[in-house]
Amino acid sequence: MQKGRASLWFDHPVYIAGMACVAGRKEGDGPLGPAIDVTEQDPMFGAECWEQAESAMQKQAAGLALEKSGISRSDVRYLFAGDLLGQLIATSFGTADLKIPLFGLYGACSTMGEAMGLGAMCVSAGYGDKVLALASSHYATAEKQFRFPLGYGNQRPESAAWTVTGCGAVVLSRDSAARPGKSAVRITGITTGRMVDMGVRDSMNMGAAMAPAAWDTIMQNFRDFGVDENYYDRIITGDLGKVGQKALLDFMRQQGHELAGRHMDCGLEIYDNERQDTHSGGSGCGCSAVTLCACILPGLLTGKWKRVLFLPTGALLSAVSFNEGQSIPGIAHGVMLESFQGGDAL
Amino acid sequence: MQKGRASLWFDHPVYIAGMACVAGRKEGDGPLGPAIDVTEQDPMFGAECWEQAESAMQKQAAGLALEKSGISRSDVRYLFAGDLLGQLIATSFGTADLKIPLFGLYGACSTMGEAMGLGAMCVSAGYGDKVLALASSHYATAEKQFRFPLGYGNQRPESAAWTVTGCGAVVLSRDSAARPGKSAVRITGITTGRMVDMGVRDSMNMGAAMAPAAWDTIMQNFRDFGVDENYYDRIITGDLGKVGQKALLDFMRQQGHELAGRHMDCGLEIYDNERQDTHSGGSGCGCSAVTLCACILPGLLTGKWKRVLFLPTGALLSAVSFNEGQSIPGIAHGVMLESFQGGDAL
Repeated sequence: MQKGRASLWFDHPVYIAGMACVAGRKEGDGPLGPAIDVTEQDPMFGAECWEQAESAMQKQAAGLALEKSGISRSDVRYLFAGDLLGQLIATSFGTADLKIPLFGLYGACSTMGEAMGLGAMCVSAGYGDKVLALASSHYATAEKQFRFPLGYGNQRPESAAWTVTGCGAVVLSRDSAARPGKSAVRITGITTGRMVDMGVRDSMNMGAAMAPAAWDTIMQNFRDFGVDENYYDRIITGDLGKVGQKALLDFMRQQGHELAGRHMDCGLEIYDNERQDTHSGGSGCGCSAVTLCACILPGLLTGKWKRVLFLPTGALLSAVSFNEGQSIPGIAHGVMLESFQGGDAL
Repeated sequence: MQKGRASLWFDHPVYIAGMACVAGRKEGDGPLGPAIDVTEQDPMFGAECWEQAESAMQKQAAGLALEKSGISRSDVRYLFAGDLLGQLIATSFGTADLKIPLFGLYGACSTMGEAMGLGAMCVSAGYGDKVLALASSHYATAEKQFRFPLGYGNQRPESAAWTVTGCGAVVLSRDSAARPGKSAVRITGITTGRMVDMGVRDSMNMGAAMAPAAWDTIMQNFRDFGVDENYYDRIITGDLGKVGQKALLDFMRQQGHELAGRHMDCGLEIYDNERQDTHSGGSGCGCSAVTLCACILPGLLTGKWKRVLFLPTGALLSAVSFNEGQSIPGIAHGVMLESFQGGDAL
């Protein structure tokens, strides 16, 4: 059902039937390490180049998500997937073997939100019983794509984020697999973001570029559903980092909304910033996708939280647009997650 | 309603409420020139660099499609859009001013099919009454992104295609605006493509890379709906060009389907190959998007054709994957278009 200007409430809710995440060594050493399904010690993932490594990671995460949910590849009707690379090459090569009809998506680091939003629309409408949504990033492919060759060893300002090497994949399903008394998670609604450009031009400070977009989508979500921050146990953005988080909390405060204590950011959860020297925090499509599978969904399943607004954030720049002096527009896609007990009336 | 493995038949059909295309001088000089809404003589479209020129073209096409269909920007619920550039920068900057919730898509030159497919799913399910689907490419941005700087003046083999400078935009609507006795076009179904990789590695012969994907989606469409080529007046691929068309017709013939006389390719329609020296034909997201608006939809509206399978084709390579010696997987997304008379029972 349409809600407000940019949101949908799903009359037929969509269930998370399974999830898996695969990540690199640094992520495995971080606070979420024990909850990451596979921590790969080899940054090349056994492949010959960084891009193929990212593809290998996608393939592994997709396979594991299907295996964990007991669903066979041939029962998955659509794949919604993307990554950060030009022409989505990690996805093109990572998902070819799945042979599932593919919608390739680009929302920068917001891609997991975009994939889950479209996937949920598809499942709730009855276009498919099972779909797979996934997103990935790799530290080395992203640095090569957006900034400097790793061998150059450039200095990083404190506002810079560290791109997560990781892939998260979720299976969305029309049927609740929750058994009576066991908890499960459903997607109840979504708020789709629009481009927000406040003129930020510093590619080493993407938190500042994305905070206005996060603010815009959160306020839209509140208006569309007639709720405020108290409706959610947590509002969890993608990769604003320390700098972007401060900006978001300030923006929200100016509108009379206090998010402190209720706001989390995947970029601040995935690394121990003090110990791991990641400056503003983690970033990349993989940041929110891995944190979703290793922290947010487990938090909902264990009853720690009942309702979460998951809000991956993206900064839409390229090396070309940056070199041409363009600004960095942002976008944020909201997904409303809710835990419930199997056997509950929906 | 789900049909077969990869197709949907829309119980509530989706109507084309409006369309517009904007293109460059070479496209204006071609056979479709008189039907292109705006032919811009300045390849920079008044902007300072190629990428901004492509963004300006998107903005103009979107505005014109809305204007021609008498729909205001604020009535459009979602925008499904994409281009060929790394990180979709033509779209990011071209559509920001629209302030419409955006799903950014990357399907290489198949993007118009992906955008119309997702847009139609969205409208038919009732998630939005009006959505906008658009895709663009620009000769100069694409050459810079994928091949050589224009100033290098490299030679082009006969199998190479010429990237179209153009953008096509369509407004999809849940309500038929067709008046009694006037014809209109609806999307009756879609077949979503999957990645098909036959190991082609020549970026100057993308027709060969995409033909297997076109074949795969056409055969899937036939199986899913229990039809064959006789169901359609035309099957129109995106940008296979001369080389890819020959391969597709051969593949289809091997399966007992004769498409000659019924197959068209946007890449062969948009230029006069003899006179305009475009070798294998036109290519790029803009090739199928402009041909849709300047040739296919008009052909349906004037009663020349009743049923068309529109099948934009994409080659999923990047300069990085090419330089790393990877193959070029292809994908093709099918959209079933049908003309009808206003007042007809649906």
